[in-house]
Amino acid sequence: MFFVTRREIFSAAHRLYNPKFSDEENERIFGKCSNPNWHGHNYILEVIVAGEINPETGYLIDLKLLKEIIIKNIIDKVDHKNLNTETDFMSGIIPTAENIAAAVWNQLVDKIPDGKLYSVKIYETENNYFEYRGE
Amino acid sequence: MFFVTRREIFSAAHRLYNPKFSDEENERIFGKCSNPNWHGHNYILEVIVAGEINPETGYLIDLKLLKEIIIKNIIDKVDHKNLNTETDFMSGIIPTAENIAAAVWNQLVDKIPDGKLYSVKIYETENNYFEYRGE
Amino acid sequence: MFFVTRREIFSAAHRLYNPKFSDEENERIFGKCSNPNWHGHNYILEVIVAGEINPETGYLIDLKLLKEIIIKNIIDKVDHKNLNTETDFMSGIIPTAENIAAAVWNQLVDKIPDGKLYSVKIYETENNYFEYRGE
Amino acid sequence: MFFVTRREIFSAAHRLYNPKFSDEENERIFGKCSNPNWHGHNYILEVIVAGEINPETGYLIDLKLLKEIIIKNIIDKVDHKNLNTETDFMSGIIPTAENIAAAVWNQLVDKIPDGKLYSVKIYETENNYFEYRGE
Amino acid sequence: MFFVTRREIFSAAHRLYNPKFSDEENERIFGKCSNPNWHGHNYILEVIVAGEINPETGYLIDLKLLKEIIIKNIIDKVDHKNLNTETDFMSGIIPTAENIAAAVWNQLVDKIPDGKLYSVKIYETENNYFEYRGE
Amino acid sequence: MFFVTRREIFSAAHRLYNPKFSDEENERIFGKCSNPNWHGHNYILEVIVAGEINPETGYLIDLKLLKEIIIKNIIDKVDHKNLNTETDFMSGIIPTAENIAAAVWNQLVDKIPDGKLYSVKIYETENNYFEYRGE
Repeated sequence: MFFVTRREIFSAAHRLYNPKFSDEENERIFGKCSNPNWHGHNYILEVIVAGEINPETGYLIDLKLLKEIIIKNIIDKVDHKNLNTETDFMSGIIPTAENIAAAVWNQLVDKIPDGKLYSVKIYETENNYFEYRGE
Repeated sequence: MFFVTRREIFSAAHRLYNPKFSDEENERIFGKCSNPNWHGHNYILEVIVAGEINPETGYLIDLKLLKEIIIKNIIDKVDHKNLNTETDFMSGIIPTAENIAAAVWNQLVDKIPDGKLYSVKIYETENNYFEYRGE
Repeated sequence: MFFVTRREIFSAAHRLYNPKFSDEENERIFGKCSNPNWHGHNYILEVIVAGEINPETGYLIDLKLLKEIIIKNIIDKVDHKNLNTETDFMSGIIPTAENIAAAVWNQLVDKIPDGKLYSVKIYETENNYFEYRGE
Repeated sequence: MFFVTRREIFSAAHRLYNPKFSDEENERIFGKCSNPNWHGHNYILEVIVAGEINPETGYLIDLKLLKEIIIKNIIDKVDHKNLNTETDFMSGIIPTAENIAAAVWNQLVDKIPDGKLYSVKIYETENNYFEYRGE
Repeated sequence: MFFVTRREIFSAAHRLYNPKFSDEENERIFGKCSNPNWHGHNYILEVIVAGEINPETGYLIDLKLLKEIIIKNIIDKVDHKNLNTETDFMSGIIPTAENIAAAVWNQLVDKIPDGKLYSVKIYETENNYFEYRGE
Repeated sequence: MFFVTRREIFSAAHRLYNPKFSDEENERIFGKCSNPNWHGHNYILEVIVAGEINPETGYLIDLKLLKEIIIKNIIDKVDHKNLNTETDFMSGIIPTAENIAAAVWNQLVDKIPDGKLYSVKIYETENNYFEYRGE
């Protein structure tokens, strides 16, 4: 089994906030991550595809193609954006890194032409990483 | 001559925008960095102090003390904040990384108890770095 | 399945030494890592928790809480310490990175309030990494 | 289950090219990676061994020994070499990172004295990573 | 004084070789770096511009513009190329990292529209870095 | 003016302690860094040499030679050692990173065959860096 990883970076604003909770509850649960004036991150996104090698090319998947798929479906919708209010595929979702990883998975899972989507990783800071495998 | 560097990280939202310009001009000059819905970064801040060593301690400056000065005067005012609207020492300043570095310099230059402030560096992304030396 | 990783760093002294062996055997097996005058490392610790997302919060586990658990149970007992002589949970254990990872696992496995402990990683140098999954 | 990783770096030239294809097809499939005048990379190689700990030593495998095995069987044959024309174990193989990982696996799988080879990772650039697990 | 750094990466093949020397002398002086079958690196290039801030924009120089200048004049001529035989501005120059840095300086020094070129850095491996300041 | 940097890593134990002070004073000044049972670090050492390029070789200094000089004079005396009790050139010196940098400078300044020693940098942790330029 082979695994190919493509790494992309995006810079976005967000805020953790559940509209079902009061402001005090949001503050208690999410702390400074719930700041109503926003904050932001340089997110590192890793998309991992699993599969077999094409013997004609030695590629599992052409990384130029994988890059284009990620740019079109994810990066163009999140980079220099507000994840709460501007990213269509995050609409109605609390933008924790866990939920971003799952939403990216849902956007990409049907669009991988060779191999299968195996994992989506999000590094929110250098100390906090997240992974979703849609098992 | 000795140099001591303390590195801290903060996550903030910002937007590049000059109120003297029209929205079209801001868009033309700052591109996606002018998004009115904000975006954000994990900023890496490096504060560099120059001076001589105290022979009793072998320290130029006690890094616990330098860390506390940076946390109190800078990090507490920028981390998980909106640099345009919430950071007092950025009020009225376009929050480019150049201007953040100069504003951090101005906050710290009179507060270094041992040695002298030599340089303030800001890493906005892994490809774009900025430095100010108040010469 | 989701995975959340928290990264912490600690600086410690240690020595590889098995009291069942002679000094010559310890020297032959462990080489310079057996230096009786100690050496040390900046260890990077990664603690990985697996589980499902709480739909109310979008969190698998609150990372502030996970951080506190790691600080209290691990970092406070290893940072700026001698792993051979000062760390209670390493008592009688040769402090190889493999054994440190397993000992950290044993300290944490019953203390994770949401999700389940999945993996403990130790980076001893930039070229040597270790992982334990208590399968 | 324990996992031990040893990281090594090598610098090599290569070219992606399948002699069954015309030059135009190679150019179309591999793009600039097919440049007949070569290009090159600093490859990062990670070799991961899985197994149990020897209670006498606290080691899964002695990393000095694992390093020597990797240097002798891999690094000496690829570092500062041309992967297409000079590396015996890549002969007749298109030197994509996927194929390099599989070829390294085949070189090492029978030579690990303690534990079992679990994974071979190749980082070709900071954005493109590859892994092979010979499952 | 402000300093702005733009970082770019390129992957190239090269060989250290002085045609004035015999093959034996080249081998003695340059060792494995003189391999006639080439080798290569992922080079990290940092271009540092010094100057004052434009108070209208808060920029020393627009990094989008600086990026375009570096891509057009440097990266397009070195990425996935052979530095000895394909890069016009390296023609007749031994492609040591020192010489690459000086050649990049010469290409860029007259093309910086705001501020002045201050330094060119080349990271050839993670252990070997080079800088040229055309003082 | 050219600058060449060689990076090396060593792992050592140390303790900050001035015998002129009481144990209480050492504890007050140096905190946990004064632990009498030692602690340790993976130190990153960067040695920077400045000078002109030899037009015959394109080198400021042969990095193989610079590496050997650093290994023989520094790394062999500090790696897997106790800096307080085992390193001859640190004898009687409080092993702060500032003092280590100055002591490395003194060891190397007369041994650089091409160019001149310009700077010695020590990274003690990922947040604390130190530099000495013997101006």
